[in-house]
Amino acid sequence: MKAEIIAVGTELLLGQIVNSNAQFLSLELAALGIDVFFQTVVGDNSSRLQQAIEIARSRADVILFTGGIGPTEDDLTKDALAASLGRGLHIDQLAMDHVQRFFDERKIVMTENNRKQALIIDGATPLPNETGLAVGLAFADGGKYYLVLPGPPREMKPMFTGQAKPWLQQHALTGEMPIYSKMLKFAGIGESLLEDKLIDLIRNQSDPTIAPYAKEGEVTVRISTKAPSEREAMQKLEVLETTIQEILPEHMYANIDVPLEQLIVDWMADAGLTLSAAESCTGGLLMESITNIPGSASMFLGGIVCYSNEMKKKLLNVPAALLEGPDAPGAVSREVAEVLADQVRMIADSDFGLSVTGVAGPGYSERKPVGLVFVGLAERGRPTQVYELNLKGTRENIRLRTVKSLLYRLWRRLEERKVDTPLEGSALQ
Amino acid sequence: MKAEIIAVGTELLLGQIVNSNAQFLSLELAALGIDVFFQTVVGDNSSRLQQAIEIARSRADVILFTGGIGPTEDDLTKDALAASLGRGLHIDQLAMDHVQRFFDERKIVMTENNRKQALIIDGATPLPNETGLAVGLAFADGGKYYLVLPGPPREMKPMFTGQAKPWLQQHALTGEMPIYSKMLKFAGIGESLLEDKLIDLIRNQSDPTIAPYAKEGEVTVRISTKAPSEREAMQKLEVLETTIQEILPEHMYANIDVPLEQLIVDWMADAGLTLSAAESCTGGLLMESITNIPGSASMFLGGIVCYSNEMKKKLLNVPAALLEGPDAPGAVSREVAEVLADQVRMIADSDFGLSVTGVAGPGYSERKPVGLVFVGLAERGRPTQVYELNLKGTRENIRLRTVKSLLYRLWRRLEERKVDTPLEGSALQ
Repeated sequence: MKAEIIAVGTELLLGQIVNSNAQFLSLELAALGIDVFFQTVVGDNSSRLQQAIEIARSRADVILFTGGIGPTEDDLTKDALAASLGRGLHIDQLAMDHVQRFFDERKIVMTENNRKQALIIDGATPLPNETGLAVGLAFADGGKYYLVLPGPPREMKPMFTGQAKPWLQQHALTGEMPIYSKMLKFAGIGESLLEDKLIDLIRNQSDPTIAPYAKEGEVTVRISTKAPSEREAMQKLEVLETTIQEILPEHMYANIDVPLEQLIVDWMADAGLTLSAAESCTGGLLMESITNIPGSASMFLGGIVCYSNEMKKKLLNVPAALLEGPDAPGAVSREVAEVLADQVRMIADSDFGLSVTGVAGPGYSERKPVGLVFVGLAERGRPTQVYELNLKGTRENIRLRTVKSLLYRLWRRLEERKVDTPLEGSALQ
Repeated sequence: MKAEIIAVGTELLLGQIVNSNAQFLSLELAALGIDVFFQTVVGDNSSRLQQAIEIARSRADVILFTGGIGPTEDDLTKDALAASLGRGLHIDQLAMDHVQRFFDERKIVMTENNRKQALIIDGATPLPNETGLAVGLAFADGGKYYLVLPGPPREMKPMFTGQAKPWLQQHALTGEMPIYSKMLKFAGIGESLLEDKLIDLIRNQSDPTIAPYAKEGEVTVRISTKAPSEREAMQKLEVLETTIQEILPEHMYANIDVPLEQLIVDWMADAGLTLSAAESCTGGLLMESITNIPGSASMFLGGIVCYSNEMKKKLLNVPAALLEGPDAPGAVSREVAEVLADQVRMIADSDFGLSVTGVAGPGYSERKPVGLVFVGLAERGRPTQVYELNLKGTRENIRLRTVKSLLYRLWRRLEERKVDTPLEGSALQ
């Protein structure tokens, strides 16, 4: 089954926004076993939109539209599609009530153009919009399946997941075996090295299929298979998962789509363990990544960004002898990383303390090369570990990869602790 | 002049990456006065790619390709385009030398498939790849203009800006008046309010044109005009710029495309002023935004993430009476924001101290609503200012908008100081 995604909106053609809807829908359709062969972007122009519809009908079985279903004159998607298929349009009463209620609740008079948001094509199934006003729609015509979704991602995503996807499964995918996927998540390894390790599996893949991809310092491998039942699919997927885990025993941290920070926050919060951090070259990025996770307040106590040497001495008791003088190791050193991790852990009285000191660039510092970073991991009652990183890339990249690398070290240590003290994670407090 | 952008790559159709190249090129082409009418994404498949080329030739004057010019068997763009136009391919010797040198310098044996990266279509102008290996190309055929660019943005962007854009200007835009643009940057105001204030200008625009767009808490307005000379264009643009500035006198912070953090870092560094910060609910995001700017080390000293009340008391001397007890104002309060800003400024001995305390959600804290945030601005020798924010949105949104709002306050204060002490910005140290 072949699909085409048509995003409608002049703002996309002007480059004002990026077509993230196409990415979301492509991922979702791939997971349903539907092949996306084309993504098209067209502006708010009726004749060009109808032209795009004609082309899509000639080459796809499923055509998904995003955008162009709001209240303004520029919103043309439903009209163009109806015209193209020779169908009429009518107001859907439930959708109209939903729009009217929105204005009533806010005590605003509804302007006439808002009625447009309740329009559906004759014969189509309305897809209620739970996070917005414009109703979506789904229908089959001449052996093709059409889905019309809103443009704003916060309306489009829940409508797809909650309504359009089940509709597709019931109507378009009835004869086909469903597809099942697992997301395997990796840390502490780059995409190219991971691909290298899995190259034989990737080259010889048939069923299940393997697709690795990298995003913001993490690598994800999606494994997928078609099967008559979930049980059979999971059996096949687990065999491959085990094989992959055996090839990369240290790096796979989850078999669901979850960021590493989330696992760390959840597990430390459950175990009653606490964390603090002292950051130099990452300047707050490490703490920001952790506190970005809801619930982090119960395990993350706080920390210090010690960008200047003065702050290192004053707030983190780094001895001047380590920082200054011709023979001093300097701020970017194994010694300073150790003091920073130790001190911040003691100051915060936390179970773990993390530290970072390094050269993020551009330009070297202390005659040390860009990309040289030391990260420290202090733990109550155990010797502090320091790791040296030699990273390449832009300032942004070096900072991001430093953070991911240190979180990976923390996660590995938490995993070891689970083995050491499986039933009393909080006992060491 | 009408353009179409064709992005080639199965990874786009699988949703593994978002088509940010199309956004970049659309923005660039709009700035050249070229209308992008379609963006197309097609996979690494020769017949579907040729089909997309045929369609684009029927509806566009300029066709830009990104991706599919690497060394693997899946890289088909040049072959498909050559076949479609009935042209041949040959190795460009300079491009081949560039590829060969890359391997020689790394003392790696070049495999035969890398020769493919030096291929160009007969009659095309090679576009050297300064940040990668695959050569791009540009040519005219039958009144149409073709540009073939690499897929990785870090190769595509410099090749477009440095080579493809001048080529277009020389070959495709000769008869047309060049277009000139200015980017006006705004802070401390949302996109919808800004649009509201400029609605009459936007509705009645003809020449220059006005295009507002929002990105990560900042709003940009691009104003553009066509003119025979830069001098004439700038005169027209400056009239409109002045009008816009008069409508929004407090919010326009630059007339070049620069983030607010950059202005703050550069100006404080030049003036010899220093900064520190104490963050609660933003958890490091404020400091991360500042330290993300190269050169921030010369003005940003450091700061404290005081996520827990213990850290607020211990590191920032917040009196327990403010935090605890039935009548205490609590951590999320005007009083605590003031102490945090004062204290961090004194501890760091910096000219300015910033603070944040609030409820980023999800879930309220201290019975205070999600989105209530207090930000503080302490300055050596002046009373500390505290501002109350009432923000809506997700946790991520609230954190981001808090940071932008506080940076906006700091920028406003720096502007005031420039007026107070125009020639001795560092005199108050």
